[in-house]
Amino acid sequence: MPVVSVRSVSLNEVIARLELQDEMERVDGYMKNLASSPVLTVSEPARHVISAGGKRLRAMLVLLAAKLNRYDPSKAVAVASAVELIHAASLVHDDLIDQSPRRRGLTTVHTKWFRDAALVGGDYLFALSATAIARSGDIRVLDCLGRAAVRICEGEISLVQNVSPLDQALEAYFFKIGGKTAVLFEEGLKAAGVISGASEVEIEALGRYGHNVGMAFQITDDLLDYVGDPTVIGKPVGGDLRRRQITLPLIYAAADGMSPTLRTTIDRIDDGATLAEVEELLAWVQRSIGIEQSQQKAQHYCQQACDALQTFPPSAARDALEGIAWFVLERRK
Amino acid sequence: MPVVSVRSVSLNEVIARLELQDEMERVDGYMKNLASSPVLTVSEPARHVISAGGKRLRAMLVLLAAKLNRYDPSKAVAVASAVELIHAASLVHDDLIDQSPRRRGLTTVHTKWFRDAALVGGDYLFALSATAIARSGDIRVLDCLGRAAVRICEGEISLVQNVSPLDQALEAYFFKIGGKTAVLFEEGLKAAGVISGASEVEIEALGRYGHNVGMAFQITDDLLDYVGDPTVIGKPVGGDLRRRQITLPLIYAAADGMSPTLRTTIDRIDDGATLAEVEELLAWVQRSIGIEQSQQKAQHYCQQACDALQTFPPSAARDALEGIAWFVLERRK
Repeated sequence: MPVVSVRSVSLNEVIARLELQDEMERVDGYMKNLASSPVLTVSEPARHVISAGGKRLRAMLVLLAAKLNRYDPSKAVAVASAVELIHAASLVHDDLIDQSPRRRGLTTVHTKWFRDAALVGGDYLFALSATAIARSGDIRVLDCLGRAAVRICEGEISLVQNVSPLDQALEAYFFKIGGKTAVLFEEGLKAAGVISGASEVEIEALGRYGHNVGMAFQITDDLLDYVGDPTVIGKPVGGDLRRRQITLPLIYAAADGMSPTLRTTIDRIDDGATLAEVEELLAWVQRSIGIEQSQQKAQHYCQQACDALQTFPPSAARDALEGIAWFVLERRK
Repeated sequence: MPVVSVRSVSLNEVIARLELQDEMERVDGYMKNLASSPVLTVSEPARHVISAGGKRLRAMLVLLAAKLNRYDPSKAVAVASAVELIHAASLVHDDLIDQSPRRRGLTTVHTKWFRDAALVGGDYLFALSATAIARSGDIRVLDCLGRAAVRICEGEISLVQNVSPLDQALEAYFFKIGGKTAVLFEEGLKAAGVISGASEVEIEALGRYGHNVGMAFQITDDLLDYVGDPTVIGKPVGGDLRRRQITLPLIYAAADGMSPTLRTTIDRIDDGATLAEVEELLAWVQRSIGIEQSQQKAQHYCQQACDALQTFPPSAARDALEGIAWFVLERRK
């Protein structure tokens, strides 16, 4: 992974410096309050996912982006919550599709309850996000987040089926992560601009920042799945490849040339490659130039994100957004 | 089934009399246009479901309700489309949960494609509804339809687990169909009031009309599953009971008294009752007083719906809404 940059800042530092503690707690409380259906089969899974929490990175970025202009805490909390709820909904359905047993150190919904609880529980979280968007009081927020929801579906279902030709493999990969991950950062940040009275130019810049941070975030995720520290990320490396998912490190590694044996494994990755062959491929990618090239690509996105911030005058919120972009790149989990 | 009333009016008659042809086609075209993702794995299932169409009863009610006040065709078409898209999304997930092979005479999404296409395809239709709501330009529409989406999830996952004690069985049944079916009528009609400048009192009356029509609609559906004509409804009767679902005719039949053998079958309906036992129960319900009592209940809801319309002065649109309420009750499929 890249050397830690002095520009990087941890999320806890940002919360302390920008005094975001109160709003972050309001986001949490608002989501839990929303998920209060008397039908426990929907509210329990929803609260389970909300309580698991995670970094709440998306919420934090929304709050900070709103601080670049006319900050209205209630509206910002509503948009931040809506973004986190859409994210949570997509995770529940994503885990169901991937049949993942664990997420954020907790049992996934379809494992802890049953398949239909995950199906309807995801729908429920998505429905709750509508209430949060309505609370923001601005129909343009719905425009942004509705577009994000559509693209998330496209990213979720689209496949990266091969590593060559390189152009096509990269296109498929960037299309997938652009939908699966980056678009919610992009549209969430634009929505933050909308509710804080940002200009069209500023909203566009926020979207660009969000898209690029989101891309860097997902590439880093995919890198950690190859070269992360299992004791830090809380799971063994190689999970993506064992689930037969092609990500950037493998694409770049393959473009650099490979043995006919490994090529055959990739050709049969979805259909017939044995676990032993996959393990061999995994070890090869870990030692390959694909790692460094992926890091460079993530860094490139990160730089683009910071460039987009230049639209705004210097401020503590802008510094924090820049610091988080580098944090996203350099995180260990 | 009840004798056809002179008050009933067919949907085609309403379309002709109220000149709704143009807007109904716009609803159809708008939905198909929205479902134009280049990712065919999401757009093909969505267009399959949209093209299957059905009666588009909900869209028609929204258009008519909007005509009771200041009618804006574009806004009404947007709300009508949003309601139909939410309905379509819920059907795709409902069919996946029930593992139903066919719907509206067509193969269901999870059968024609695969499980995850139905999961993400349903999410996609739901996400498209957000775009349609945004098009209405009124955040209060989101408030209504977001609330509906939450209640649909609650109805979808909640169970009717027994036929006694009667009060509890009825409560569970009405709670389930109130969410699964009636709330989308209720909130869709309220949204129609919102975008046409209806007063608070009128919006409340539209919600009441919608709720009651929705309840009558679902009870009639559940009745048709016992006593419909298989050549007209396009499927064998008894499907609900064979899928071990308890609906109103069975609840009322059981309250009237039954043999210990049938009671034992009901007690084991979810766990252990054989198909032969279920068929015996089915034949018994078909001959029971539960049929007539369910018809009376549906009629009662229908009357309540018509009463709610008295808030509005007489008009062709009001007559049509009244006629449709009776049509819902007397339909044969």
